[in-house]
Amino acid sequence: MELKQIYAPIKEDLNKVKDTIKSISRIDYKWLSEQLSYIISETGKGMRPALTLLTGKLYHYDLTYLLPMAVSVELMHTATLVHDDAIDKAFTRRGQATINSKWGDEIAILMGDFLFAKAGEFVSDTQNPRVIKLFSQTLGIISSGEIGQFRLAYNINQNRESYFRRIYRKTGSLFSLATQSGAILGKAPEKSVAIMKEYADNLGIAFQIVDDILDFTSTAEILGKPVGSDLIQGTLTLPAILLIERNPEKNPVKRFFETSDKADAAEAIDNVRNTEIIKECYEIAGEYCDKACRNLNMLPQNASRKAFYDLADFVIKQGT
Amino acid sequence: MELKQIYAPIKEDLNKVKDTIKSISRIDYKWLSEQLSYIISETGKGMRPALTLLTGKLYHYDLTYLLPMAVSVELMHTATLVHDDAIDKAFTRRGQATINSKWGDEIAILMGDFLFAKAGEFVSDTQNPRVIKLFSQTLGIISSGEIGQFRLAYNINQNRESYFRRIYRKTGSLFSLATQSGAILGKAPEKSVAIMKEYADNLGIAFQIVDDILDFTSTAEILGKPVGSDLIQGTLTLPAILLIERNPEKNPVKRFFETSDKADAAEAIDNVRNTEIIKECYEIAGEYCDKACRNLNMLPQNASRKAFYDLADFVIKQGT
Repeated sequence: MELKQIYAPIKEDLNKVKDTIKSISRIDYKWLSEQLSYIISETGKGMRPALTLLTGKLYHYDLTYLLPMAVSVELMHTATLVHDDAIDKAFTRRGQATINSKWGDEIAILMGDFLFAKAGEFVSDTQNPRVIKLFSQTLGIISSGEIGQFRLAYNINQNRESYFRRIYRKTGSLFSLATQSGAILGKAPEKSVAIMKEYADNLGIAFQIVDDILDFTSTAEILGKPVGSDLIQGTLTLPAILLIERNPEKNPVKRFFETSDKADAAEAIDNVRNTEIIKECYEIAGEYCDKACRNLNMLPQNASRKAFYDLADFVIKQGT
Repeated sequence: MELKQIYAPIKEDLNKVKDTIKSISRIDYKWLSEQLSYIISETGKGMRPALTLLTGKLYHYDLTYLLPMAVSVELMHTATLVHDDAIDKAFTRRGQATINSKWGDEIAILMGDFLFAKAGEFVSDTQNPRVIKLFSQTLGIISSGEIGQFRLAYNINQNRESYFRRIYRKTGSLFSLATQSGAILGKAPEKSVAIMKEYADNLGIAFQIVDDILDFTSTAEILGKPVGSDLIQGTLTLPAILLIERNPEKNPVKRFFETSDKADAAEAIDNVRNTEIIKECYEIAGEYCDKACRNLNMLPQNASRKAFYDLADFVIKQGT
């Protein structure tokens, strides 16, 4: 099933989210306005705002609060990408030049801050102290997680468990903000808030595992950035960790981290592609998707609930 | 009068602000905890949290909300400094190595984000959607202002008016958040909120003018960074603008921006010091302080009101 179909119950409102985000660039400051249009023109999957709206639709759907919340999670996501690209010295994202490569790190830092500020403005429009606090806590989890990732770059001594913790912070936490805020603002009972937290925590991890698989198996054209970017930046992801597990002492990842010889990175990518590693990674992602969905049956049986199952299915089938 | 005396009405609570900020570094993540201790150990004047507490004390002083707010403004200030130093490639601040010079730009970006997140958490504890929105709007004003400043670096075509607008965004806006939030959380009538906004907008501008004067007239030891840092980074401040006004075609600032020859910068610093420019800058700062104070007499006559007059007096006398 395609995302378009999964998003059907909230199609129109998701367009409102996009329009609202576009409206941010209409400010009386020409140069900044142009930059913002550029950043906002990148079109991602819209998964985070979709999660907020779908969760909000489980019980009492009120767009007055759910729309700014959905806008806010997407803006926070965009802001973190702008900062991440500056940190990673990335040249392209979704096939277009990154802010840092186009205007320099300084502008990337400040544009990221500006987007955080806008995200903060929208979340304040929810008028709900609990989701506002959750919003800030999530930013704290993401940024401290990124600090950990940066500190561990080119460090071979990482295992699955540290990887799962890291990608929860990086991706799961924002998915979790998206659903929890939707549930809270949609006046869901606490039990359902917890179920939607469990769903998003695990779906986010599964989503990131698949994203990390695709970094090895996809093409530069589809990725919009070079294949193997994570490894080359020294970030250990699940496929590389499984490769190391197979031969902890002699493997091309270890050699690459020691020598920075691109041929070693190419060999690592090749090894990952030509073994059972990819299959195994998909299986692990599948386990997280199962965990995500295990309590969904306790939610009201409606279009949103069906969408959550379909979304988990979509996540796990990407690239297959 | 010294700051210690001016802060007397809120002395104990200002210590609580400092203790709360220190407590942030007590997290279960050793390396990050050490970094945070380092950042937080820098002791500034504490003017922003002092403004929040003093304003809160005008009417209904409730520390439940005023304490997190004061912590929040100080953390936002710290976060912007961490990002600014990375952008300016500054080596020292308040006499100690900057985060970017100690751990690199990447960590500076992420630590700034983490501090924004913490600031956001504290502001959400005020449970007041109006001040929460103001908080985010202020961050938007500061970061878009910094984008403007960065874009205008080494651009000679700037005048007093563009400078005053710029320093309002850079400094006035956060002073303004500090007093407005204090007034709102202290249940001040709207008229007093407006008076305290006018006070802080103008005091912030005066404070920044004096800060910019000191960058020319002080010593590296007192500044904790090299003399003339602004000029060398291509930032035009009031003393340099007045020097340009005296001879728009032939002046060492213009030459320095064209040639990057440090001898030209040294000549500019020398010229500023040996003319009436400094006196004139202090007079302009004095006008902003007068404007800041012009409606304070409409506030209740209490210790806070007296402190606001004394603070304006303190600001204008720094370095004289």
